[in-house]
Amino acid sequence: MQRHFHEELKQLKNKLLEMSFAVEEAVAKACEALFTRSATLAESVIAGEKRINNYEIEIDEEGHALFALGQPMAVDLRLITMILKINTDIERMGDHAVNIAEKCLYILDEPPLKIDERFEKMAAAAQKMLRDALGAFLKEDTDLALSVLKRDDEVDDYNAALYCELNNLMEENSKTVTAGMNLLMISHNIERIADLANNIAEDVIYWKQGREVRHRIHMDKPSAGM
Amino acid sequence: MQRHFHEELKQLKNKLLEMSFAVEEAVAKACEALFTRSATLAESVIAGEKRINNYEIEIDEEGHALFALGQPMAVDLRLITMILKINTDIERMGDHAVNIAEKCLYILDEPPLKIDERFEKMAAAAQKMLRDALGAFLKEDTDLALSVLKRDDEVDDYNAALYCELNNLMEENSKTVTAGMNLLMISHNIERIADLANNIAEDVIYWKQGREVRHRIHMDKPSAGM
Repeated sequence: MQRHFHEELKQLKNKLLEMSFAVEEAVAKACEALFTRSATLAESVIAGEKRINNYEIEIDEEGHALFALGQPMAVDLRLITMILKINTDIERMGDHAVNIAEKCLYILDEPPLKIDERFEKMAAAAQKMLRDALGAFLKEDTDLALSVLKRDDEVDDYNAALYCELNNLMEENSKTVTAGMNLLMISHNIERIADLANNIAEDVIYWKQGREVRHRIHMDKPSAGM
Repeated sequence: MQRHFHEELKQLKNKLLEMSFAVEEAVAKACEALFTRSATLAESVIAGEKRINNYEIEIDEEGHALFALGQPMAVDLRLITMILKINTDIERMGDHAVNIAEKCLYILDEPPLKIDERFEKMAAAAQKMLRDALGAFLKEDTDLALSVLKRDDEVDDYNAALYCELNNLMEENSKTVTAGMNLLMISHNIERIADLANNIAEDVIYWKQGREVRHRIHMDKPSAGM
């Protein structure tokens, strides 16, 4: 029974990693679709949503079944809990990638604004946070997880700066309002992806060190005005 | 052991209900703060975030401990899983209430726009969905849960209509851009509260009938453009 249990647990972890790669790719494609105003790329992200949702349902069900099957030891219990939490966070990142892709489709024909470079930097920072959070989980590396937490402010700052720039642009030129509204929502979605990467990093630390870092960090931070 | 287990499970369910009432109140207050432009109300929502976060952490830990403690039967396993899922959704609703309150503070001094009535209707619909989703869980009432699912489109429609109205307002009058951007985000947050109420209703149906309704419904819906 124990051997069977650990084999199942290993397979569950692998499935979570497969899903994570799919979501990482979706986020990268959605950002690329934004910068290149590519309908094809955006549509491929939207088409991939079903696959990610299916992963989530399977992992959720298999994880909860393992609780019942294995009468797990404390250490395994924590790993399953961790997998279930990351599963939820990763699926939500997939949703945000789809949201970004949908908003891209609304602004394909809008004139480009002079703030795309800041978007590129913000998106790159959020994607790096996602990659490192997953790496921290895979390698059980709390130092890497801590480095992710430290970078959350950077993305929040980009988000706050973009909010101001979009506000100014829309006030100065009413032709930018439609693009500006969609870019505001895209910026919000990228910021949420960074937040979720942060959640994963916090959970990795909790998992390895038993330190409850959730909420504490967020509560200390000033609001980014978004 | 079994008696102890069921007593703990009952207490866990009660704690979730306490938390739900706190979040329901936070959502109501945040919406009221918006309509009355009340800084005091908005600040009280923000001040209440910590209490809700603490509930979430406690329920999460106690729920997972129950998995290990009780070697639960299938029916109890499902209830614990359900509680843990609702816990996450309710805490996120609390976050959205805080987001709404924060954005209210940014627009206290902005002139009122002529779309507040639509916001009131949307907020009322989302709050009713939340109340009924929690009622469906409490009373194990799948009919009530199904009625929640049917109302999600209504809130999405309000959200899409508000998007168009805000777009027009901002294009016509640049003085409305700051308020409009914040109201766009508030509308998004209300829509997310309705989505999360929908999640809870789906989970109640899955719990009582074993039917997997998650994702399926959302995938069939057209995007609301937000």
